[in-house]
Amino acid sequence: MGVTRIGHVSLRVMDIAASVNHYTKVVGMDVTHRDSDGTTYLKCWDEWDKYSVVLRPSDRAQLDHIAYKVENDADLDVLGKRVADAGVAVSKHAAGELTFCGRSISFMLPSGQRMYLFAQKDFLGKDVGVMNPDPWPDSRHGIGVHWLDHCLILGELNPEKGINHVADCHDFLKGALDFRLTEQAMVGPGHKVMAAAFMTRTVKPHDIAIVGAPTDGFHHLSFFLDGWHDILHAGDVLSKNRVKIELLPSRHGITRGETIYFFDPSGIRNETFGGLGYAAHPDMPVITWVEEEMARGIFYTAREWVDSFSSAYTAV
Amino acid sequence: MGVTRIGHVSLRVMDIAASVNHYTKVVGMDVTHRDSDGTTYLKCWDEWDKYSVVLRPSDRAQLDHIAYKVENDADLDVLGKRVADAGVAVSKHAAGELTFCGRSISFMLPSGQRMYLFAQKDFLGKDVGVMNPDPWPDSRHGIGVHWLDHCLILGELNPEKGINHVADCHDFLKGALDFRLTEQAMVGPGHKVMAAAFMTRTVKPHDIAIVGAPTDGFHHLSFFLDGWHDILHAGDVLSKNRVKIELLPSRHGITRGETIYFFDPSGIRNETFGGLGYAAHPDMPVITWVEEEMARGIFYTAREWVDSFSSAYTAV
Amino acid sequence: MGVTRIGHVSLRVMDIAASVNHYTKVVGMDVTHRDSDGTTYLKCWDEWDKYSVVLRPSDRAQLDHIAYKVENDADLDVLGKRVADAGVAVSKHAAGELTFCGRSISFMLPSGQRMYLFAQKDFLGKDVGVMNPDPWPDSRHGIGVHWLDHCLILGELNPEKGINHVADCHDFLKGALDFRLTEQAMVGPGHKVMAAAFMTRTVKPHDIAIVGAPTDGFHHLSFFLDGWHDILHAGDVLSKNRVKIELLPSRHGITRGETIYFFDPSGIRNETFGGLGYAAHPDMPVITWVEEEMARGIFYTAREWVDSFSSAYTAV
Amino acid sequence: MGVTRIGHVSLRVMDIAASVNHYTKVVGMDVTHRDSDGTTYLKCWDEWDKYSVVLRPSDRAQLDHIAYKVENDADLDVLGKRVADAGVAVSKHAAGELTFCGRSISFMLPSGQRMYLFAQKDFLGKDVGVMNPDPWPDSRHGIGVHWLDHCLILGELNPEKGINHVADCHDFLKGALDFRLTEQAMVGPGHKVMAAAFMTRTVKPHDIAIVGAPTDGFHHLSFFLDGWHDILHAGDVLSKNRVKIELLPSRHGITRGETIYFFDPSGIRNETFGGLGYAAHPDMPVITWVEEEMARGIFYTAREWVDSFSSAYTAV
Repeated sequence: MGVTRIGHVSLRVMDIAASVNHYTKVVGMDVTHRDSDGTTYLKCWDEWDKYSVVLRPSDRAQLDHIAYKVENDADLDVLGKRVADAGVAVSKHAAGELTFCGRSISFMLPSGQRMYLFAQKDFLGKDVGVMNPDPWPDSRHGIGVHWLDHCLILGELNPEKGINHVADCHDFLKGALDFRLTEQAMVGPGHKVMAAAFMTRTVKPHDIAIVGAPTDGFHHLSFFLDGWHDILHAGDVLSKNRVKIELLPSRHGITRGETIYFFDPSGIRNETFGGLGYAAHPDMPVITWVEEEMARGIFYTAREWVDSFSSAYTAV
Repeated sequence: MGVTRIGHVSLRVMDIAASVNHYTKVVGMDVTHRDSDGTTYLKCWDEWDKYSVVLRPSDRAQLDHIAYKVENDADLDVLGKRVADAGVAVSKHAAGELTFCGRSISFMLPSGQRMYLFAQKDFLGKDVGVMNPDPWPDSRHGIGVHWLDHCLILGELNPEKGINHVADCHDFLKGALDFRLTEQAMVGPGHKVMAAAFMTRTVKPHDIAIVGAPTDGFHHLSFFLDGWHDILHAGDVLSKNRVKIELLPSRHGITRGETIYFFDPSGIRNETFGGLGYAAHPDMPVITWVEEEMARGIFYTAREWVDSFSSAYTAV
Repeated sequence: MGVTRIGHVSLRVMDIAASVNHYTKVVGMDVTHRDSDGTTYLKCWDEWDKYSVVLRPSDRAQLDHIAYKVENDADLDVLGKRVADAGVAVSKHAAGELTFCGRSISFMLPSGQRMYLFAQKDFLGKDVGVMNPDPWPDSRHGIGVHWLDHCLILGELNPEKGINHVADCHDFLKGALDFRLTEQAMVGPGHKVMAAAFMTRTVKPHDIAIVGAPTDGFHHLSFFLDGWHDILHAGDVLSKNRVKIELLPSRHGITRGETIYFFDPSGIRNETFGGLGYAAHPDMPVITWVEEEMARGIFYTAREWVDSFSSAYTAV
Repeated sequence: MGVTRIGHVSLRVMDIAASVNHYTKVVGMDVTHRDSDGTTYLKCWDEWDKYSVVLRPSDRAQLDHIAYKVENDADLDVLGKRVADAGVAVSKHAAGELTFCGRSISFMLPSGQRMYLFAQKDFLGKDVGVMNPDPWPDSRHGIGVHWLDHCLILGELNPEKGINHVADCHDFLKGALDFRLTEQAMVGPGHKVMAAAFMTRTVKPHDIAIVGAPTDGFHHLSFFLDGWHDILHAGDVLSKNRVKIELLPSRHGITRGETIYFFDPSGIRNETFGGLGYAAHPDMPVITWVEEEMARGIFYTAREWVDSFSSAYTAV
């Protein structure tokens, strides 16, 4: 019952052809539909719903919305009421308004991103099928990502002005949508200010993350890979395709994940993320990183702050 | 709400010293308590509760019980009633009766194994702690398993006599405890007989598995590793310690898991299992393996049936 | 100066179409030439000479010959004389007699296999080229082996009759062709009988191996892969293509190599072999495995003898 | 005959205790001897000679010398004469002058580093021994490097002044010591200036490398690891020990090697280098990287120039 997983990320991109090339040839997704206006829907080989990324032609790079899937249609009513009770305006959308999906609701997160919830999306099936499936399809190409795994959003953090959209977002996702906190970064005197929150609805270390920044924004969408060897392969594919890499192969301290950060042609950051890391059962104690160790928490291998979280992110 | 994960496996073993040596030096667990009768409690470095394996001195190798943890104390009442409503006798146990645990309930699975449910166990914490943790502790040793991940039990399967404890167990775990089926093997004319069921309460491909056999029994307890490289390392550690390996490093078709099967000194089968495989969200379609492909489903690399499921298993 | 590396293996196979399919689609080689009689020449992506495997249509599976490349044309005269001085008859072959090669010499090893030496073969180049090359080509397919790495031949070993073609072969390869012994297995009372010899002309742990068997024969040709992850991938490709695997992914004790043994459609054994293992410099002391540890030496993970060396091998 | 491999690197370091801690606890070597003045000799577990790194207490970080081992004692006379014939002054050293070694010769490379050649050094043996050895010893610790693999030296490159110590060094190592060129970087108009040379005496892609820089210097000493998984582990160990990393886990285009660059406590650069890459047989065509692709050649994953080759290197 409730939110089960990320459903898709909808992005506004500047060069639709270059973007589609990037998410297909490099990232390894497949196009499953194109609207007449060029809006393109893509799916990973290990996903079963019709799409997990939407690319909309635009004159600037921007996050359009993120969408999470709920288990049952009735959850939309229950969760919609809880969101409204939290003082957040809820929009209701008829079936089809969220393309290829049943009815949905949407609202603005405290950090300014629009989030949709939906219970049903057209079904296509994994490329390996459901009968005696091979572990991977011969159609795998490019980096060959398995699925859209999570996204990382930015929340304005300005303690001097009393603004902390990280904490606000955490409180909202916990209170209204039952996300659980797995790891947090705490900064300031006495480490009392939440500067990052990693939250899950499963046992994966995170299904969404919120990190503090000068303004609200969108940091990255992340695709799952089996593990570290796939990260090397991803780096090779990125280099072959001359894709700009921001963060070389590394481990995250937070989540233990193995990672590369790179950019799509519009400058929207992608991550390929490998390994389960750990199983974040509900009774696992929350992990805390203090300000002095926060760079190491996020960039465990480098232990130095990467510009990633200061300015280079996508507007919402 | 409900069952969250496997809590522990309690085993009767014939040579307690040799067994403790195996689960510590080879498997990589640590002893956290010993009773005066020699009963020994062990924990993996990435677990936080006091133990996940119990070894009881005995004159024969036998499964004592398996125990799963529920999220809330009240779940014990709800689930206890549902188990009873399913026609299964429920025993109630006061706090401490299941050592170092709060109150618990227990019952016999349709395949003859005793299962406990409990909501609380003494807490010790991961070896890496909760403050700015490293991804692994310097105390890691032997194979260095992360956690007890699941167990595989055997159910008598004799279609001619109308006996199918696999299907019975599946129906019970689904109906009373809300386990979801992720993969199944179907045999016989028209593939109508369920010969194996892989079930989860999380998004891991399985938290428990039931496979058909000549009699009810216990097949293996399985420990988690990050991935394939750890399987090679596990094989090296097993060889250094002259531990009998049943199945060389392989991939499972079912779950996609990377695996080795080997035996503890009493002949109880262990598995080290690597990688997430895939995320088994509630809306993921069930995967089916038909009889002709079942060997490939279980032993994807070998594609031939290993004796594993005919005779060499532990009584219950 | 002298022998530099294995050049090719020439095989007689029973179903040429099935064999070509195996070495291309499964193993990952490419056809570079076909004779009118169906004889087919194949090359790996990371090799530069025109072929490393020759498949000749035949009514039975048989080793035709193995060929090693020498550094300079003049080496053929020097080594030819040394072979003759060792009492072994040497045949001289004009350029082209060994297809696409310059002049060559050939002779029978003490274990009954015909070995050619040649200094020149037509050049095609690696698939990645020599200008700013990527680490692997987009044309990589199937298991994607890098190169033919070595072969393992069988020598009759019958100490009671005073027959030891392993030792004979070792002495010949050392004495006439300057191969160095890296590892040996010694059996019998006092471990005085050489039952296996691993020999190199480089710093790879072996460029050729000779193992004792009931009769002379050919055990396998082996292809190089980077490492253990490629062995998992190889296993997946073999399973997808329903290729018979003899030895599941394992480590060799001898050479430390990571391995799978499988069969081509004629029943000729292939190996995919991963990792350097160690650098066998000339001053590295020889490693010795005694009879009681020989199974562990060859099959380190399994530590049990596989039928591989008793009967299932190819005639010469 | 001739040079077989790197024998050791002798370094002057500023804090001998911190340096010994680094090369033992972090890198994973063992101390095999200490002189009364604090000079410390260290060996890797997979090496057999008494040491491969020497640390001398000093008031500044500096390369003392590099030493390569030749196959036979007589090679010292032959090669000494060839070096002298090349117009380079040769010093002869009695046995013991190069500590724990037999007689040796030394000379200055055209790029200003002192190179010793020796034929014999005291023998200790691999930690795994030579009888039925395990693939790795239980004594393995820290990053657990296998052996000192190669070093990269810097040669002054100033085409406008007609200075090219890279080409000079290449010519000397080829002409006098029979090193073979495997890969080169060519810069300037028409790509006629050799800006980097990777040279080998084995089939490893390099046993020594020379890269152009503003002044002669020493860039790094490099230790061998099996492969990419060990690079992740190395990064974890470096982070646990707060060691400064210069280059995050990456692939080199040149050599295909998997790498991390980091610094010892005196600021001397270390590399851990994984995988064979390819087998550089004598008949493999030389690989060329042109100026526009040189950054990608060295830092394949990043494809951007790292400061590494501009200023941060050690004097000679």
